[in-house]
Amino acid sequence: MTTLAEEVALAYGSPAVMIDLGVVERNVARAQAACDAAGLGNRPHIKTHKSPVLARLQREAGALGLTCQTLGEAEVMHAAGLDGILISYNLLGPDKRGRLARLLRETDLTVSADHPAVVAGYAEAAGAAGRPLDVVVECDTGRGRAGVATPAEAVALARTIAESPSLRFAGLLLYPPDGAVAQAQTFLDTVRAGLGEAGLEARIVSTGGTPNLRHLGALRGATEHRAGTAVFNDRMMMACGAATLADCALDVVATVVSRAAPGRGILDAGSKTLTADPGGGLDGYGLIREFPRARIAKFAEEHGFLDLSGCPESPEVGAVVRVVPNHVCVVVNMADRLVATRDGRIVGEIPVAARGMSR
Amino acid sequence: MTTLAEEVALAYGSPAVMIDLGVVERNVARAQAACDAAGLGNRPHIKTHKSPVLARLQREAGALGLTCQTLGEAEVMHAAGLDGILISYNLLGPDKRGRLARLLRETDLTVSADHPAVVAGYAEAAGAAGRPLDVVVECDTGRGRAGVATPAEAVALARTIAESPSLRFAGLLLYPPDGAVAQAQTFLDTVRAGLGEAGLEARIVSTGGTPNLRHLGALRGATEHRAGTAVFNDRMMMACGAATLADCALDVVATVVSRAAPGRGILDAGSKTLTADPGGGLDGYGLIREFPRARIAKFAEEHGFLDLSGCPESPEVGAVVRVVPNHVCVVVNMADRLVATRDGRIVGEIPVAARGMSR
Repeated sequence: MTTLAEEVALAYGSPAVMIDLGVVERNVARAQAACDAAGLGNRPHIKTHKSPVLARLQREAGALGLTCQTLGEAEVMHAAGLDGILISYNLLGPDKRGRLARLLRETDLTVSADHPAVVAGYAEAAGAAGRPLDVVVECDTGRGRAGVATPAEAVALARTIAESPSLRFAGLLLYPPDGAVAQAQTFLDTVRAGLGEAGLEARIVSTGGTPNLRHLGALRGATEHRAGTAVFNDRMMMACGAATLADCALDVVATVVSRAAPGRGILDAGSKTLTADPGGGLDGYGLIREFPRARIAKFAEEHGFLDLSGCPESPEVGAVVRVVPNHVCVVVNMADRLVATRDGRIVGEIPVAARGMSR
Repeated sequence: MTTLAEEVALAYGSPAVMIDLGVVERNVARAQAACDAAGLGNRPHIKTHKSPVLARLQREAGALGLTCQTLGEAEVMHAAGLDGILISYNLLGPDKRGRLARLLRETDLTVSADHPAVVAGYAEAAGAAGRPLDVVVECDTGRGRAGVATPAEAVALARTIAESPSLRFAGLLLYPPDGAVAQAQTFLDTVRAGLGEAGLEARIVSTGGTPNLRHLGALRGATEHRAGTAVFNDRMMMACGAATLADCALDVVATVVSRAAPGRGILDAGSKTLTADPGGGLDGYGLIREFPRARIAKFAEEHGFLDLSGCPESPEVGAVVRVVPNHVCVVVNMADRLVATRDGRIVGEIPVAARGMSR
């Protein structure tokens, strides 16, 4: 009997990336329901799937818009007819300003900023477009990534935005570490008080992250949430308790291509397929569904080194297996297409239209 | 004054991947000269650049053919009119057999095997093509990856190949760890003696690796070498002494997009651009040419976390910089094109035609 993985390998070659549409739809519905239950808008982050087809599925399930991490992703989504786009990233430089102006001429956009130089560029782009641009202030409440570091800076930047004739101050963008509500609440309350004194209001208070879907409603004043990974889930989400194996919608189909010695083997999925993302310190680089005690110990570019010493049964040369990756977002970004399946059958392919669109 | 990196960011967006064609040509000439000096054939590994344009440059510099790591790469190279292809990988399964037969009908190929099941598939493919297929036996001389583990297995597999009417035993494929000549020599000598007793001869004895370019000629009986990374070089090659910074031909152009606090910043090149490849244990994820004491400490997908605490001068928001990646082969595989420069000017773009062709 031929397995689904073998059918995928035959039709699309090995390695291939496949998704189960039934699980995807369930995941999309669950994220939407979590936002609905908390009275929050849902603006899913498309960085995970990079696909207008799946973005449309999310919109039709009730999402109020989409989040993109790059201008290139936003261009792809807009070109496919999607709207309600928030870009949660500082956009800088003359190329970005020109492209932002062109995109803004065609659709409403919300962008984020954490520095006056970024705001100045937005003002120039919006001026060139002749249409107002909504800007949220990115606030760092503990991640140490981007985002203003203090409430005072947030209020000052909100004022700068509001004072620009071509910009509209739209609110705040937060990305609190998983469950770190108290620190975010203090920051947010202080900013909102300062905004009130300045006669400003945060219409949008956006939070992010799939693990934080469990904490929706805890942060008073939040208005919407952006989760990305929830559409597919992965080994990281399993490790932090945000998903079970049954919630993982995406597998890498791969073939055992060598068994040169007992206790070890080689998979044809290496760092050019599964990526070297350690998933925040997980053991190994993926979970093989058929051989859960096999360990993907290390990589060459097209070789996954299998440690099979702990396996009661181990795969033969030629065995086709399904691997749940550590971090699904980076794995999708390696693939030009996802093989779509439903009820154990291949039903088509979904282009990863924004693959590689980091610019 | 506008820098070259700023020009690239303006013309192609940030982040972008750029190469210096002058350095590429020098690197290609150096690898060819090293092979020539050792009396070895040069069959450069195209997994690094995945570009027919650069493969042709290598052929015109004297290479006797090309090495590919995947059948998909070989299909792209053949479609672009290149020949002399060796695929240094076990090809398994019905999809691979069918594609291999189609490719073999159109061009001579050498493939490698480390298991009778792989050889059986090759015999079937060559039979279907109606043309002979050259097969080398992959031998493991210390890496613990693919390759038969003993000389006796190598001889037995060579016999199996030679006995197949549709296959030709062509020789041996080795990939010794850097400088591990003695172990490889013992293995090789034992295999060659066994082949002689069987009335067989290894026409090809192929070694691999850019670091091993320094050891060419040390392994008696080698006939050709396949180096990949040498075309561009990277931080790993600098760390092992195989290249200097001046030999690094490829940079990721990136922009400092946030400086939310003193001593830290964010680059717009994250794991979706530079990849999480640790480069065999290097400190950080890349060398910033303009700020060599800046450390790319960790990644989000579109964020490179900069630790600037050790920098006497640190970049402002908006600064465009050039990053030498840890491992150039996986970085190229993220990009759809390379921006080609010469003498400090952009001269065009080179498609990464085999990007993502892991299948």
